[in-house]
Amino acid sequence: MKKYAYGVDLGGTTVKIGRFSTDGELVHKYEIPTRKEDSGAFILKDIADSIMKDLTEAGLEKDDLHGIGIDVPGPVHEEAVVNRCVNLGWGVRPVAEEMRKLTGIENVKVANDANAAALGEMWKGGGEGYTDVVMITLGTGVGGGIVLNGKIVGGTFGAAGEVGHMQVNAEETRVCGCGGTGHLEQYCSATGIAYLGTEALKNTDRPSVLREKKNLTAKHVFDAAKQGDEVAVEVAEHVGQVLGRAMASISCVIDPQIYVIGGGVSRAGSYLLNLVSENFKKTAFHASVDTKIVLAKLGNDAGMYGAVKLVLD
Amino acid sequence: MKKYAYGVDLGGTTVKIGRFSTDGELVHKYEIPTRKEDSGAFILKDIADSIMKDLTEAGLEKDDLHGIGIDVPGPVHEEAVVNRCVNLGWGVRPVAEEMRKLTGIENVKVANDANAAALGEMWKGGGEGYTDVVMITLGTGVGGGIVLNGKIVGGTFGAAGEVGHMQVNAEETRVCGCGGTGHLEQYCSATGIAYLGTEALKNTDRPSVLREKKNLTAKHVFDAAKQGDEVAVEVAEHVGQVLGRAMASISCVIDPQIYVIGGGVSRAGSYLLNLVSENFKKTAFHASVDTKIVLAKLGNDAGMYGAVKLVLD
Repeated sequence: MKKYAYGVDLGGTTVKIGRFSTDGELVHKYEIPTRKEDSGAFILKDIADSIMKDLTEAGLEKDDLHGIGIDVPGPVHEEAVVNRCVNLGWGVRPVAEEMRKLTGIENVKVANDANAAALGEMWKGGGEGYTDVVMITLGTGVGGGIVLNGKIVGGTFGAAGEVGHMQVNAEETRVCGCGGTGHLEQYCSATGIAYLGTEALKNTDRPSVLREKKNLTAKHVFDAAKQGDEVAVEVAEHVGQVLGRAMASISCVIDPQIYVIGGGVSRAGSYLLNLVSENFKKTAFHASVDTKIVLAKLGNDAGMYGAVKLVLD
Repeated sequence: MKKYAYGVDLGGTTVKIGRFSTDGELVHKYEIPTRKEDSGAFILKDIADSIMKDLTEAGLEKDDLHGIGIDVPGPVHEEAVVNRCVNLGWGVRPVAEEMRKLTGIENVKVANDANAAALGEMWKGGGEGYTDVVMITLGTGVGGGIVLNGKIVGGTFGAAGEVGHMQVNAEETRVCGCGGTGHLEQYCSATGIAYLGTEALKNTDRPSVLREKKNLTAKHVFDAAKQGDEVAVEVAEHVGQVLGRAMASISCVIDPQIYVIGGGVSRAGSYLLNLVSENFKKTAFHASVDTKIVLAKLGNDAGMYGAVKLVLD
């Protein structure tokens, strides 16, 4: 194995690029903007150019480069072909093949961003030391990634790990971003939690510090809940119930060693973790009640770590 | 690879034993009783003796034997150690190691019975030609098995594939056999369907042929539904809804290529399959709506096929 490899986390606004030593240390990281004009025609070239420039600046050569791993915000099919990244303006695109041509580097691997983040957290984050990991990312939406035997489970249609779209409430009439109803994401994303908070205030006359907030956010809800605000506590408990139950169902399918909870909402920390763990234990199949549940550690770098891990394996 | 291998499906009442050619044909199958006295102390010896006898009778020798695969009705941990098979009276038991000693055959593999059935159906049954298969067995309970990349997913605590214990109704107060509430098994097993039928009759004055049945069974319900009996149709649709929705959730986790529905209830055939498929499509994440759903083909032989596949891989 050569000395260095790149992990590239390709997002809708910026591209995070990390140069790693092949023994797994992040040596240098930087960002470039994601140029979306002309249906994202320049994105891969920008990345390739930037990597070549970084190599030169570091006094390295192509021959020192073991490979390039890239994650993208869309479904990745076999042979590393990406099928529609709405955020990038891409249709079907053979990312690995294009990147090989642009860089002359043969070892290029591609994964979906949520899956790469799960792999990164397994390797160097909250799931370090484990091989069977479910990562759940509570952000604007709810994403997820599944790693079994140290490898990403991508799914037949690139939809493995889409746990945000598990139906957790068959009676729900509100529509999820994906067109379904009653999905996990509608309750446990930052947006979902803000919605639940707003509804809770409407449905009660009780005082609550949440009433003072102009644009209620998930952070407001958890901050107030930690201070004992009754309405906020109820909303937080609802979130914990819904997520804990969904995880209990996930364990009935693949029974992982550990859950890693990440994303902006996870900054609520041990307060959230305790709620989720308690509800998981209540509903989990008896064999799985001792499954570990931890917070993510790598923050926004998780995708970059996972991406480089793809070419180190 | 040598010429023959055995697949052994170890059940609570009988042991089904199949001699297979190592190119995958079932050459001879027979059953022996499962001797449960003395905490099942004689079961493995009975199996070993019976295999040696069968070999001799077929004019074969130990040297013709490639290996022995066994499935057991309980959780199987790494190194093929079985942890409590209530039906057999077993505690912790190193099945593979014991079998090696009893037979002198080195290549012995062990799996859980539901997982082995899934592997069998993938190999020679409803899932033939696929590698990522979820099998759901609708019997007295609801069992399941997950195969990804052609290999059984066993789970950290041996609980992968326990889809019968996914909570599908958080409001349910009735208790599942496992101690939980609102589990898939309480609605979609033979027992669960009979219960739903009985409740449906109590809750309506409408006429129904189901009222004539003394001990209402799942078969009565589906037979009557096929004849257009209104109450029975409603119960069958309820079952289809609950199962279709649970499968939609499973697809959000691992997004398999195909679902194989087996067990006694699956004898309701295409009527059941259509109900389940329709409800799956309604609730599945958009990427996964075209996932295949088929009936199992191997019946009670599935475990035996899966067991032998363990040693042929």
